[in-house]
Amino acid sequence: MSAPIIHGGGITEAAAAFGGVPRDWLDLSTGVNPNPVSLPDIPVNAWHRLPDRHLVDGARAAAARYYRSGDVLPLPVPGTQSVIQLLPRLIKAGRRVAIFAPTYGEYARVLLAAGFAVDEITAPDDLTAEHGLAILVNPNNPTGQAHFPGEIIALARRMKANNGTLLVDEAFGDTQPDLSVAFSVAEHDNLIVFRSFGKFFGLAGLRLGFVIAGEPVLSAFREWLGPWSVSGPALVIAAALMNADTNAVQSAITERKTALEDVLLRAGLKIIGGTPLFTLVELEQAAHLHTHLCRAYILTRKFDYAPSWLRIGLAPDVAGDTRLADALRRADLA
Amino acid sequence: MSAPIIHGGGITEAAAAFGGVPRDWLDLSTGVNPNPVSLPDIPVNAWHRLPDRHLVDGARAAAARYYRSGDVLPLPVPGTQSVIQLLPRLIKAGRRVAIFAPTYGEYARVLLAAGFAVDEITAPDDLTAEHGLAILVNPNNPTGQAHFPGEIIALARRMKANNGTLLVDEAFGDTQPDLSVAFSVAEHDNLIVFRSFGKFFGLAGLRLGFVIAGEPVLSAFREWLGPWSVSGPALVIAAALMNADTNAVQSAITERKTALEDVLLRAGLKIIGGTPLFTLVELEQAAHLHTHLCRAYILTRKFDYAPSWLRIGLAPDVAGDTRLADALRRADLA
Repeated sequence: MSAPIIHGGGITEAAAAFGGVPRDWLDLSTGVNPNPVSLPDIPVNAWHRLPDRHLVDGARAAAARYYRSGDVLPLPVPGTQSVIQLLPRLIKAGRRVAIFAPTYGEYARVLLAAGFAVDEITAPDDLTAEHGLAILVNPNNPTGQAHFPGEIIALARRMKANNGTLLVDEAFGDTQPDLSVAFSVAEHDNLIVFRSFGKFFGLAGLRLGFVIAGEPVLSAFREWLGPWSVSGPALVIAAALMNADTNAVQSAITERKTALEDVLLRAGLKIIGGTPLFTLVELEQAAHLHTHLCRAYILTRKFDYAPSWLRIGLAPDVAGDTRLADALRRADLA
Repeated sequence: MSAPIIHGGGITEAAAAFGGVPRDWLDLSTGVNPNPVSLPDIPVNAWHRLPDRHLVDGARAAAARYYRSGDVLPLPVPGTQSVIQLLPRLIKAGRRVAIFAPTYGEYARVLLAAGFAVDEITAPDDLTAEHGLAILVNPNNPTGQAHFPGEIIALARRMKANNGTLLVDEAFGDTQPDLSVAFSVAEHDNLIVFRSFGKFFGLAGLRLGFVIAGEPVLSAFREWLGPWSVSGPALVIAAALMNADTNAVQSAITERKTALEDVLLRAGLKIIGGTPLFTLVELEQAAHLHTHLCRAYILTRKFDYAPSWLRIGLAPDVAGDTRLADALRRADLA
């Protein structure tokens, strides 16, 4: 078993260490839209009955439109994490795994725990014939580095030449649909796309993600997860929100992101990356600033592997921006 | 991959075969309380945030009280099915599995698919030293056969003598708490109890179950499921409903069960088993009656392995009882 990874969202632990109760805290440690979209009506039957075929079919059709995956119907899963946990079963034992790094830590954790050799790579030329799986988070978390479809499809072809699979995690892809390769899964049987539902819609508690891949991969995940793996309410909510106009959600995120960057720049912080849902700053005293903000009950995300980085999520409103700005002003960042 | 198993709740398929749309159907094919308990208030944060530690802790404390597991805090999982899928990882390769049969089909399906040798047994004396895992559903589905704790603890000791594990699935245990062995898990490190949340409360769409077991087993399941496997709303709902008085739920189930048995007996059917949430009848023309009821848009549950059995769940109200009674009256069961 590998060491646990620090994740965003650990308000309970933060409050235990620095005081207050969870509702006192401003949680900027995640990349989740801070203003959850209004929930559609959830019929009693969605809570009551085992999720029946027509609920699953409705969510899949809506997801195909929303993710623009054409004839490939995305498979709903109970959070992307649930399929990350299954990745060791997808790869032939003995083949190596390449992860474009640094990135979201759960891929390396799960694959190392299952005994795979994992290479953290930075460029396509680091790939070898030994790699049975390459993993790219696009846009990347936490750097925000983005790759356009042409590059990614070239990568898929390169992996295919050695019977390898390319997994693209588009967890932060909703705000940048032009980056997605969901449309080309139909043409590349070694390409798998993971999508996260909760980040963009602000509904991370729902535990819902989608896998876009060829039928053999979807069948395998379906078999391993077993029947009824996604809750009825999650399927209903996903279908309704993905079929609705999402422009207002997008605009609200953009407005919040602009406000965040304004606060950070006024505080003299150096922005080195991000996506519309979070910003990455670099400063020598990142650990010091993280602690200082915790004392003001503001949680941000630090990184063991990059001690000078701090990832800061969107505040829900102007009051949150002001609270962050005030705390930054009081920080001693000489 | 093994053949798919017929489950209850397949209203979409039934409607495709016999007509109507799902809402036209009276679904008596499951063992779920037909009258879902009113939902407590779900705070926006339960939908919005990744399920944080305090939500999980709250649900675990409520479950320990409700299931009377003492100091053992039950682990919430996204439906019992999610941990059935993981059973192959819990048993040493090469050891045989014993399942008290006939019973819920998913155990055999998942373990056979993973390559385990599975013996369907009917008595404790069928157990041998080769069995690394024995599985008992108590009370049993669909027969309703019940075992009292004394017998089960003897079984756990017997398994322990050969380094084996006893798994007791108490999915239908809420209405018969005197049958539960949850209280003795603390004293038997080879005893695992699965509980289902949705059947008794009528919330099967929620996808929530609990595992009651020693810390090594809970840690393994937690590691395999990964972080945030249960949705925030499910944790909030479970904590609230398990902390509340459940006598009214129990009485409503008893009233519905009495009405069901009355209808079945008046129709001249032979009741051979059941639990408060379903009744098992036996008749030579079971397949014929199943089809006849489907033509009246009433779905019951038949069994490949026992062609003379029909399992019939509770109707939600008197109108449902009457609809079933009328359809039975029109059946030609000469």
